[in-house]
Amino acid sequence: MNPKKTDYPDCCKHLSTGDARPARCSETEMTQMVLPNDGNIFGNALGGMVMHWADMAAAIAARRFCGTGVVTASIDSLSFINPIPVGQVARLRAKVTWCGRTSMEVRVDVEAEDLDAREVRPTSVAYLTFVSLDEQGKPTPVPRLVLETDEEKAEHEAAEKRREARLKLREQTRPR
Amino acid sequence: MNPKKTDYPDCCKHLSTGDARPARCSETEMTQMVLPNDGNIFGNALGGMVMHWADMAAAIAARRFCGTGVVTASIDSLSFINPIPVGQVARLRAKVTWCGRTSMEVRVDVEAEDLDAREVRPTSVAYLTFVSLDEQGKPTPVPRLVLETDEEKAEHEAAEKRREARLKLREQTRPR
Amino acid sequence: MNPKKTDYPDCCKHLSTGDARPARCSETEMTQMVLPNDGNIFGNALGGMVMHWADMAAAIAARRFCGTGVVTASIDSLSFINPIPVGQVARLRAKVTWCGRTSMEVRVDVEAEDLDAREVRPTSVAYLTFVSLDEQGKPTPVPRLVLETDEEKAEHEAAEKRREARLKLREQTRPR
Amino acid sequence: MNPKKTDYPDCCKHLSTGDARPARCSETEMTQMVLPNDGNIFGNALGGMVMHWADMAAAIAARRFCGTGVVTASIDSLSFINPIPVGQVARLRAKVTWCGRTSMEVRVDVEAEDLDAREVRPTSVAYLTFVSLDEQGKPTPVPRLVLETDEEKAEHEAAEKRREARLKLREQTRPR
Amino acid sequence: MNPKKTDYPDCCKHLSTGDARPARCSETEMTQMVLPNDGNIFGNALGGMVMHWADMAAAIAARRFCGTGVVTASIDSLSFINPIPVGQVARLRAKVTWCGRTSMEVRVDVEAEDLDAREVRPTSVAYLTFVSLDEQGKPTPVPRLVLETDEEKAEHEAAEKRREARLKLREQTRPR
Amino acid sequence: MNPKKTDYPDCCKHLSTGDARPARCSETEMTQMVLPNDGNIFGNALGGMVMHWADMAAAIAARRFCGTGVVTASIDSLSFINPIPVGQVARLRAKVTWCGRTSMEVRVDVEAEDLDAREVRPTSVAYLTFVSLDEQGKPTPVPRLVLETDEEKAEHEAAEKRREARLKLREQTRPR
Repeated sequence: MNPKKTDYPDCCKHLSTGDARPARCSETEMTQMVLPNDGNIFGNALGGMVMHWADMAAAIAARRFCGTGVVTASIDSLSFINPIPVGQVARLRAKVTWCGRTSMEVRVDVEAEDLDAREVRPTSVAYLTFVSLDEQGKPTPVPRLVLETDEEKAEHEAAEKRREARLKLREQTRPR
Repeated sequence: MNPKKTDYPDCCKHLSTGDARPARCSETEMTQMVLPNDGNIFGNALGGMVMHWADMAAAIAARRFCGTGVVTASIDSLSFINPIPVGQVARLRAKVTWCGRTSMEVRVDVEAEDLDAREVRPTSVAYLTFVSLDEQGKPTPVPRLVLETDEEKAEHEAAEKRREARLKLREQTRPR
Repeated sequence: MNPKKTDYPDCCKHLSTGDARPARCSETEMTQMVLPNDGNIFGNALGGMVMHWADMAAAIAARRFCGTGVVTASIDSLSFINPIPVGQVARLRAKVTWCGRTSMEVRVDVEAEDLDAREVRPTSVAYLTFVSLDEQGKPTPVPRLVLETDEEKAEHEAAEKRREARLKLREQTRPR
Repeated sequence: MNPKKTDYPDCCKHLSTGDARPARCSETEMTQMVLPNDGNIFGNALGGMVMHWADMAAAIAARRFCGTGVVTASIDSLSFINPIPVGQVARLRAKVTWCGRTSMEVRVDVEAEDLDAREVRPTSVAYLTFVSLDEQGKPTPVPRLVLETDEEKAEHEAAEKRREARLKLREQTRPR
Repeated sequence: MNPKKTDYPDCCKHLSTGDARPARCSETEMTQMVLPNDGNIFGNALGGMVMHWADMAAAIAARRFCGTGVVTASIDSLSFINPIPVGQVARLRAKVTWCGRTSMEVRVDVEAEDLDAREVRPTSVAYLTFVSLDEQGKPTPVPRLVLETDEEKAEHEAAEKRREARLKLREQTRPR
Repeated sequence: MNPKKTDYPDCCKHLSTGDARPARCSETEMTQMVLPNDGNIFGNALGGMVMHWADMAAAIAARRFCGTGVVTASIDSLSFINPIPVGQVARLRAKVTWCGRTSMEVRVDVEAEDLDAREVRPTSVAYLTFVSLDEQGKPTPVPRLVLETDEEKAEHEAAEKRREARLKLREQTRPR
């Protein structure tokens, strides 16, 4: 057993509390072959299975960003635009878009890749929120988020609006 | 092999197109023992696994209501209030709350049942939307929804508000 | 994280040793979508998979009754009357029928629900016996069983006869 | 792809209808590493998982005997004498013990093998009944069973007694 | 359902038979959270599970390259240099390194990512060979492989040597 | 709970360090029904799933031989000669062929058994190497290997050649 380490990206390095980390350090790509048991009666990936994969990809992105354990706090409105047939490939790309003191929002893009027809179609865009936990399972501060591209800045602004709208929505629409 | 049928509830019977069916006919109860592989590094059920179960319970509720195949169209904002530790039981209750022409909204309540401490705690309330599909996979009309209790009426009203708010939210908050 | 408890049924409350609990407190309903991997070459749920679900439902019923961990001690003769095709729903209802000092018998009714044809057919009736274990894994007393309905009383009487017949059967029929 | 066949045992060869086959041709050995997800809260294999494996091993034994598809018709009383901890090995041996016109009884012996302590302990003896089905899913005759050893003859005799006792038991003990 | 396609990379486009495609078009990244059931008794990912993931990643890379279905023909010598503990992330990167008339060799690099210690360690380098199959399951020609970087050229040369050595090895070392 | 032990084979007994054990004590037979989720788009067992089963069977054989925990160190060149369709049975036979101080080579033969056509075809021959680990996860000596048959001796000789060729191959063919 040869415990030699590889070179790893700078963004994977340890940070002191309060330090900042660029959004790109959280980027995660997941590739899933859709197997028969992942499918519904129409032969397409079950919605809940796609959610499960999105949660996995987003959790890894969040942990790559904060460097501690995380739990899923909530999942924002998620639509299924195109199905992913059994035998095709689900491609998921996740990235941190917004940070609070101990929480992070992650965007996950899901695509269906048809390896025979040579086509890639968008399936879903999901926004999940995670809370960073220390080893006792208590919420713990996350690094400051550094936005480097225009796309990241636009996402961040949209995230702020989503937060406000979401809070308002919850007050208005739950019965009782 | 003795193909004798049991008595089944009236609400399970076939309907003509355009007929109505009470919301209670869709009620579904699912019970899941949380196994080690369902857990995260803190020993609690993975958020994505709870979503997967919620999607299953909701899909069965939707199919009990419409009597055809369904696909998940979207999942509304879902929060995780309490964790469900491995070894405990996840209880899910699903029921149709709103119907359009070919779509249905289903509410799923998730609870964590601690069989040793004799406690039941709420975990999540999720709202999922399904589309009814015929055998060719085309959207097909669903029965009219009959609301019988005050709770069902309040849910329905809240569902209408959620729909409006959701449409507005989407316009405002997606980047580009 | 908001650890507020919901109202839970009285039957879920803690008991002192020697206390009694009604049979209905153990009632458990499980709903399983039959997925491709659960099926045999004829496209029906594997017998062993149905047994696995029945064991899960029965174990939850037993733990709801006794409030401690349990292990499966034996499974009584179980017949498969009707198949459950992949794509249909397996419905399991479990309830404690008989109690000894540290053991409980649980009845599980399994039905196949065809969501398209709107039919529910009985699949199996199984009787499983569980032993209540304390935290050291030693058998520990269970609550006294309170029978409230005529059906529960008839089940209990039948359970007593099954016990006697089973003991006799074992002596007679095992080779060597 | 080189479709060369290996030498296979004579007992695997095709038979004409009405032909006989020795019981030993059905012998099946299955070895299962018990993984974390197969375990209960005490860290031992779930009873239902052992049943699932026993059904698989028995179904293969039945198909080795009859050469057609089979379905599980019933499972006879099955006791769990010793637990199988996660990390140990479940050993299953299955063999046809009795044949009717279209049905077969299979005995499955389950043992727990502790690879560190170098011990093998019996866990369960199960008797399952299978029905032989043709390609249309209709019951179809099985070969005549040839008994070659004293053990096989004793098993067969016990099987006849079990059948009688089982029929009597069913009449007496089901409520209603 | 809105079947709008996204922009997809040129390398995903259809080719005429005999056309060439750059190696980079096959690049595949897979990310797997190691769950409890993937682990052995030491709490590390089972070797066979890593092989299973490597086969998945490599099969997707091969299909991205050839645009038809594929089957695994062989797996070359694969070493496990470092373990991947449960709770860490397995990162797999696959890429076509060599092509014959109907077969392709794929290299898979597996790394263990420790999200808490912020370290990435190499786990395995595997070489798998796939055969391209048409819809009747017959071997069918693959595109010509275009090598663009020095690394790709070095890999290709090494692949040629591996092929020769492998053929020699097989002749010498199989008993009988 | 009756913890009575069965008679177990002598080769399963504890050995003092440095003692010898015959190769046959490691013999392991595994039988796997190929389920839908194990299959690729052609309806045959995924190559990686066969590897996973081979690793399981070989790990059990290695542990039966050495009596301690083991980890997979490497897998030698493995070819897939014939596919194993979903619905057929994968038969795996594993046996230790060679031992070093702390490592063991295991041969696994995989066959596809077609229960309807009554045919058994060879699928793969795999050689895997395992390292014996003590409770602290450190390499620990294995028993001396006793070769009893001509086949075992031929295998052992071939294993020595494989080792040499493998070491040479690694030096020559890895890029950089």
